[in-house]
Amino acid sequence: MSKRIVTFGEILLRLSPPNHLRITQTNSLEMYFGGAEANVAASLSKFGYRNQFVTAIPPNELGESALSMLRSFGVEPLAKIQGTRLGVYYFEHGASERPGKVIYDRENSSFSTLKKGMIDWTSLFDGADWFHWSGITPSLSLELAAICEEALLVATKMGLTISADLNYRPTLWNYGKKPNEIMPNLIQHCDVLIGGSDESEIVLGINLKEEKDEELIFKSWNTVFPKLKIIASTKRFNANASSNSVSASIWNGSEILSSKSYHISHIIDRIGAGDAFMAGLIYGLLEWTNDTQSALEFATAASCLKHSIAGDINLATVSEIKSLMMGSGGGRVSR
Amino acid sequence: MSKRIVTFGEILLRLSPPNHLRITQTNSLEMYFGGAEANVAASLSKFGYRNQFVTAIPPNELGESALSMLRSFGVEPLAKIQGTRLGVYYFEHGASERPGKVIYDRENSSFSTLKKGMIDWTSLFDGADWFHWSGITPSLSLELAAICEEALLVATKMGLTISADLNYRPTLWNYGKKPNEIMPNLIQHCDVLIGGSDESEIVLGINLKEEKDEELIFKSWNTVFPKLKIIASTKRFNANASSNSVSASIWNGSEILSSKSYHISHIIDRIGAGDAFMAGLIYGLLEWTNDTQSALEFATAASCLKHSIAGDINLATVSEIKSLMMGSGGGRVSR
Amino acid sequence: MSKRIVTFGEILLRLSPPNHLRITQTNSLEMYFGGAEANVAASLSKFGYRNQFVTAIPPNELGESALSMLRSFGVEPLAKIQGTRLGVYYFEHGASERPGKVIYDRENSSFSTLKKGMIDWTSLFDGADWFHWSGITPSLSLELAAICEEALLVATKMGLTISADLNYRPTLWNYGKKPNEIMPNLIQHCDVLIGGSDESEIVLGINLKEEKDEELIFKSWNTVFPKLKIIASTKRFNANASSNSVSASIWNGSEILSSKSYHISHIIDRIGAGDAFMAGLIYGLLEWTNDTQSALEFATAASCLKHSIAGDINLATVSEIKSLMMGSGGGRVSR
Amino acid sequence: MSKRIVTFGEILLRLSPPNHLRITQTNSLEMYFGGAEANVAASLSKFGYRNQFVTAIPPNELGESALSMLRSFGVEPLAKIQGTRLGVYYFEHGASERPGKVIYDRENSSFSTLKKGMIDWTSLFDGADWFHWSGITPSLSLELAAICEEALLVATKMGLTISADLNYRPTLWNYGKKPNEIMPNLIQHCDVLIGGSDESEIVLGINLKEEKDEELIFKSWNTVFPKLKIIASTKRFNANASSNSVSASIWNGSEILSSKSYHISHIIDRIGAGDAFMAGLIYGLLEWTNDTQSALEFATAASCLKHSIAGDINLATVSEIKSLMMGSGGGRVSR
Amino acid sequence: MSKRIVTFGEILLRLSPPNHLRITQTNSLEMYFGGAEANVAASLSKFGYRNQFVTAIPPNELGESALSMLRSFGVEPLAKIQGTRLGVYYFEHGASERPGKVIYDRENSSFSTLKKGMIDWTSLFDGADWFHWSGITPSLSLELAAICEEALLVATKMGLTISADLNYRPTLWNYGKKPNEIMPNLIQHCDVLIGGSDESEIVLGINLKEEKDEELIFKSWNTVFPKLKIIASTKRFNANASSNSVSASIWNGSEILSSKSYHISHIIDRIGAGDAFMAGLIYGLLEWTNDTQSALEFATAASCLKHSIAGDINLATVSEIKSLMMGSGGGRVSR
Amino acid sequence: MSKRIVTFGEILLRLSPPNHLRITQTNSLEMYFGGAEANVAASLSKFGYRNQFVTAIPPNELGESALSMLRSFGVEPLAKIQGTRLGVYYFEHGASERPGKVIYDRENSSFSTLKKGMIDWTSLFDGADWFHWSGITPSLSLELAAICEEALLVATKMGLTISADLNYRPTLWNYGKKPNEIMPNLIQHCDVLIGGSDESEIVLGINLKEEKDEELIFKSWNTVFPKLKIIASTKRFNANASSNSVSASIWNGSEILSSKSYHISHIIDRIGAGDAFMAGLIYGLLEWTNDTQSALEFATAASCLKHSIAGDINLATVSEIKSLMMGSGGGRVSR
Repeated sequence: MSKRIVTFGEILLRLSPPNHLRITQTNSLEMYFGGAEANVAASLSKFGYRNQFVTAIPPNELGESALSMLRSFGVEPLAKIQGTRLGVYYFEHGASERPGKVIYDRENSSFSTLKKGMIDWTSLFDGADWFHWSGITPSLSLELAAICEEALLVATKMGLTISADLNYRPTLWNYGKKPNEIMPNLIQHCDVLIGGSDESEIVLGINLKEEKDEELIFKSWNTVFPKLKIIASTKRFNANASSNSVSASIWNGSEILSSKSYHISHIIDRIGAGDAFMAGLIYGLLEWTNDTQSALEFATAASCLKHSIAGDINLATVSEIKSLMMGSGGGRVSR
Repeated sequence: MSKRIVTFGEILLRLSPPNHLRITQTNSLEMYFGGAEANVAASLSKFGYRNQFVTAIPPNELGESALSMLRSFGVEPLAKIQGTRLGVYYFEHGASERPGKVIYDRENSSFSTLKKGMIDWTSLFDGADWFHWSGITPSLSLELAAICEEALLVATKMGLTISADLNYRPTLWNYGKKPNEIMPNLIQHCDVLIGGSDESEIVLGINLKEEKDEELIFKSWNTVFPKLKIIASTKRFNANASSNSVSASIWNGSEILSSKSYHISHIIDRIGAGDAFMAGLIYGLLEWTNDTQSALEFATAASCLKHSIAGDINLATVSEIKSLMMGSGGGRVSR
Repeated sequence: MSKRIVTFGEILLRLSPPNHLRITQTNSLEMYFGGAEANVAASLSKFGYRNQFVTAIPPNELGESALSMLRSFGVEPLAKIQGTRLGVYYFEHGASERPGKVIYDRENSSFSTLKKGMIDWTSLFDGADWFHWSGITPSLSLELAAICEEALLVATKMGLTISADLNYRPTLWNYGKKPNEIMPNLIQHCDVLIGGSDESEIVLGINLKEEKDEELIFKSWNTVFPKLKIIASTKRFNANASSNSVSASIWNGSEILSSKSYHISHIIDRIGAGDAFMAGLIYGLLEWTNDTQSALEFATAASCLKHSIAGDINLATVSEIKSLMMGSGGGRVSR
Repeated sequence: MSKRIVTFGEILLRLSPPNHLRITQTNSLEMYFGGAEANVAASLSKFGYRNQFVTAIPPNELGESALSMLRSFGVEPLAKIQGTRLGVYYFEHGASERPGKVIYDRENSSFSTLKKGMIDWTSLFDGADWFHWSGITPSLSLELAAICEEALLVATKMGLTISADLNYRPTLWNYGKKPNEIMPNLIQHCDVLIGGSDESEIVLGINLKEEKDEELIFKSWNTVFPKLKIIASTKRFNANASSNSVSASIWNGSEILSSKSYHISHIIDRIGAGDAFMAGLIYGLLEWTNDTQSALEFATAASCLKHSIAGDINLATVSEIKSLMMGSGGGRVSR
Repeated sequence: MSKRIVTFGEILLRLSPPNHLRITQTNSLEMYFGGAEANVAASLSKFGYRNQFVTAIPPNELGESALSMLRSFGVEPLAKIQGTRLGVYYFEHGASERPGKVIYDRENSSFSTLKKGMIDWTSLFDGADWFHWSGITPSLSLELAAICEEALLVATKMGLTISADLNYRPTLWNYGKKPNEIMPNLIQHCDVLIGGSDESEIVLGINLKEEKDEELIFKSWNTVFPKLKIIASTKRFNANASSNSVSASIWNGSEILSSKSYHISHIIDRIGAGDAFMAGLIYGLLEWTNDTQSALEFATAASCLKHSIAGDINLATVSEIKSLMMGSGGGRVSR
Repeated sequence: MSKRIVTFGEILLRLSPPNHLRITQTNSLEMYFGGAEANVAASLSKFGYRNQFVTAIPPNELGESALSMLRSFGVEPLAKIQGTRLGVYYFEHGASERPGKVIYDRENSSFSTLKKGMIDWTSLFDGADWFHWSGITPSLSLELAAICEEALLVATKMGLTISADLNYRPTLWNYGKKPNEIMPNLIQHCDVLIGGSDESEIVLGINLKEEKDEELIFKSWNTVFPKLKIIASTKRFNANASSNSVSASIWNGSEILSSKSYHISHIIDRIGAGDAFMAGLIYGLLEWTNDTQSALEFATAASCLKHSIAGDINLATVSEIKSLMMGSGGGRVSR
């Protein structure tokens, strides 16, 4: 497997109370490192692809640890060492009717000190097949949005396949621009997109009124962004903080397809389930170029398994995901 | 919010094996401090009320730690420092079909050395709005039952609203009196009561034969105890040690109302769910004086959330409880 | 209770990541000791029987710890101290759709160095009532299969009741013999057997075509092995790694009986559930000699409770199991 | 004991790897809350004084936890709820020849958003006896230095005793002013000062050339700051990260006195040792107004005991400190 | 090795904060079980002797766990199941100049409900070689002192060797008798005694004025208690809570001998060091009947090693102790 | 820094009880991965060199985890995936007079299944500067000794600098050959050697009688192995399991030099101290080609710091080591 993929985004230190404790009662915090694009990168490395992750970290042990974690998966981090702090987020796991909770403390991070022109995209993309980014990065600052555009223009010129996850987080867009003032200009370069119908107007600026039919929605998106070849969306239902069902749908330019639905009765960690889907989708599209249904099933099974894995990153292997795709083992211990 | 509430009761050291281990296999114990009335006190402080908790502790680090925990919530503990030991209970969490288990080791505690006349109720209640106690205290000794009466007489005279939770624990009543020889004399002073129909004869001495209708039961109680303005009761169904549904009902002198029912699929800690309801009810009755239904819904949602929180005390905030009352977030992480 | 039971088998060190972590992400491992026959032995000691467990361990702290664990239950270990290593298995707990996983590292263990003639079965069985073994031992080597036969011949001659659990593990039978070349010769000596219909041909060499009727299957087995008086089988359904339902059936020579079915909504540890059933069945058959249904219900309830207990060994007591048999407490905390 | 003391400063979240692990190898962090002035406040509350701690925290669970911790000691926190983040510092414990390491991540904290005029010093100091601050606060920003002056002017006018700890941290003074451009203006209001001879020029702007004699140094300081009545200084020698000796000296306007020296063979946590000395000195000066030697010995013993206590705050009690002052128990367990 | 030893005493649950935390700051407690005589029993079983430990426990999981722990060492516990609680003690580890601290919570324990006549000493001592008890038991109540006498009379009649450890704990003797009103009557039956010169008057009632010479002191004791053949005493010097030196001396009826001295630079757990010495002495006297010096060196080395082992019980083996006796390995890892 | 180094050896799973517990009392084990040559490799990567580590691992999660750990340091593992098990060793930390203890369980590991011809040394060494191996590998089997020779011949031909650590472990040499029948043939290819005078005869076959002078010893070695340019040796004195002093000496062909001596008062983990020295020496010889003294001081300081770091691998950085070389900070916290 010789595909080479480039991802770009921020990596954060995540701090979580153990054993379902609340932040106000714990006296220790579990450490993980993650971030939407880093999670995709690590998962793709675990699937066997070569992977370069572009980011920025401070010159201290926390930045170093973030890189070590990525390297442990085989990701090749390409990090600017600048600024003074690694972004942090505190994540309190929910349980049953108590929702999980995120406190972001990511402002003024090293990543936020990146400027246009700092990254040599041309040599980075040399020999690469795919570029992945997400809507988190342009939500952080105008400069970061501009860097995304800079990367997308080079990637487009050099013929890479480009994927994006809209990843709309209302609390992050606070530098004075609305998502739909920024994102459409970036999405126009993408071949593969993950997004939900509720993001249509607010992120893409496409007002679909009360339209519920996903096929019509995705076709409308494609009309506006004609480069899009694949649009996918994940669904969560019957959900509380400890259990839910997941499924997904995909539009491949000619038809809308639906995945199997999985009931996840005991969620270990829901962070990164969307990123696990994204990585699974990239894998699926590369492995089964003419079989969108298989790509979708692989991505959905990958996302399902992520819910059973602690931390932000999907540690499931290709063979485990395929095994779930083919029919679950009913919980039998594999000896 | 300037209401001032006084609670009276014993605070215990709770020791529990971690990670669902049994007592016979663990080599460490998690420490919490709790007790029916202390749990109500801490929750009310978290809701924003001023709160004084009257108790007794030994002159050692365990007693000191119990007070520190209360103070961390903003409770003002008023503790006699006497006797030699803090009461202890060991709690083994259950799982699925294995029930949880409590081993009490609370005899001869500092609290049990309290005598009538030791507490200056008159100055304590000066400026206070509400007095809360529960059936645990009179179950411990005749002297403690007498202290309850002493407090109730002063509170009544000084015009405080009085609430009680029957909290019947068969294994505690072992000093030679039956609950219904002691409790009716105390309940007659109360305005607000939590109790279940199965406690009618054994605790209140009111034999209702096979009566199942809660409205009739609570009316009968009101006939015997005419000062009662509010009677509430919680229900648990479809239960094993890891999951159950909860709901509650309330009688407000004119009608019986029922709450929403919540299914709790993954119980983190069920201890204190009744106390969380009690604290929620006090809050609700103070905030919505003319809206018993809202008071009930707040109390039930508070109790529901307690099941997701480790330890004896409900760490849920007013806004979290109101958010659940208004409709659950379906497990979505709040960012 | 003065019955004396002898069990024979290997005891292993089990190493598991805590808190549902995967092996590739943990930095610590929880230690347990277990093994099919050791689990039966420990449970029977907890039930009150005298119990001798025959095994081999290396002359180091790990072997010593395995014996200490057994002694802590009151089991009398009779261990040859030889060889160089205790067998190990790594167990990764599953969750929801992610199955649990076992990595065996048990080759060249002390137990595998046992030879015929090393164990003095005659004096061991002197005064004993029952001998239990399982299909794990003969799967490990031809020599160990021969030792099983050696023991069975002596036990038969001395009049002990003999029980076996087929315990078919495909990955273990790798010394060149198929189970059905070895097991029938051993099973012919048994009075009590646990096995499943899918083991009929592969383990017992009895080809039943598509036969689904358990009564017919067990009768066929009895035709081939006329000494069998009791044949039982457990069932797991609606299963993922976190929840399932269990029930069991038993054939007592004259009829097939079915147990209650239990839904286990939150599995703590599924390893040893079959061994818990086996120990429960031995207890049941000894206590209720004329009431196979009660024996079956006790065994099934024992197995159900095991799922709620961490480690390989069932720590449930006779009274807890009987209490579940009689009707669950609905998750009520027992105070 | 009815003295009331006001302290002012920042409280930080401290995150430390457990068990002497390095930051780059840990996957969990122990949480403590601390800060130079908060540590003094908590210790003084533990000694029995009423204590108000003035600070600012963000409106989230981390700010709330910082206050809960303070309240657990009986400190009354008076916190502005503003800004978005609690300052953090990562502390890696050293061992033997490997020094401990602090990574500050405190910029843009809630405390740094305080402005002159936000705190009503007049009502705060009403009825108070003592005001304590340290050189950390003016090192953070010009505005915070101005708030210190604002507080000092009011405190002086209202007749409080004022103490300061120079607490010089080179890496903090980075807003463009040198310590000796700011600090002398603040120190002129103080009655009690802790500082070391190496801080004379850089912090106080008093160039003493090669002067080594502490009495002469402190007299020179007193000449410049005539309000100073007490100047004290702590010493650490024969030190590595795991062991050292400590002693202290004090100048009381008429003579210089030296304390006992303690060898601390196994340091548990060295953070806060200076703050423990400061709190001990305030206690000592209040308790033994005419006996500077006893005040010094109490402060030194308090600091010695802090080295044996995890976290930033000295949990030693008055009686434990007095017991060490009077002569150590030689390690005998106190039963 | 076929010697059979009987020990009698209370076994307690010990609860200690981990990682040198103080009781007031921990939220978990490590569990150990121990007691002066139980510690001796477990150590002797580890040395290879058959050992019966006579005690009383409550009918709950804590009592059961205490027995399991003893059985794990091969001790045969002979426990009356009565009363309601297992005695508890909280032990806070000290560090450097901060002394360790014990809070006893052992009143009204199951052991304290033992009465004369409950234990059948005659059958217990049948076939036994040695009886060991300590001064803890008669300190607890007059009845327990009487049971000691009861046991001693039978043991004497049946010809067992009898050993005692004075184990004087001032806080325990609070039922109205002074040690020297009770202990001399019991010590008169003993062959082997451990005690210190400071216990002479207060425990044994022998006023030796200012006598410092140990040989003279022990001779005086022998004059009063002519049955004594061996008197030994341990010494601790240059001590703080983390390090000290230990040595011991012994009088064998003809001369006083001194052991090697060991410097223990990093104490892991000092509880049980005296009991480790006692067990080592019994072993030594049985193994080297004519070589008191070797017995003393073995006992001292055993006690030295105990300081490096967590919990109350000495887990050192005979070969490890002999290896230290012969000359330490200089810290070399044994591979 | 562009030097590329190749190392060859086995990587093992290390399992250790936490908190100084003994193996017989722990219920969890901390996981580390290490091995003499892997430790050197990881340290060199941390120093900034490119590093390839040649080994073999089984196709399971334990092998995968070993590689992930190496990759996290930036090491490029080149691992044959074969065999069935990763070698394991259990390490019990010592304390004071109790020595640490290793139990090896490494037989039949994947590494032991390597055969001559499996590794393509020629392409591996292409572009590399240095090859490092140790005496552990040839101690494991005759085949592994032959692979070492195979590698050495190629490395010599291709002009790499070759270093070796004698690393004599008596318990490992058990396949029928004595070290001095194997090692001299391998050492003749080496440029840099670490060894001790006590290994002269047993490992190198050079009988030096009672010779104590290190310069004469190393000259004798050089006479036999004329390719040797550097011979170094480390010393440990005043040692117990918790503290010791370390220093080292080096012979550079013309003179013998000695390093500073460090007293390490609180050892966190002594495993890998020799490997840390080796890595430091390689760094030193590459950085200061004409300054053997500096190379030696760097290596000795690296080894000193390793004692303060948990696990097998030295996490100290170049700047931390240089800082210690230049003079320790006296335990001051670096902020």
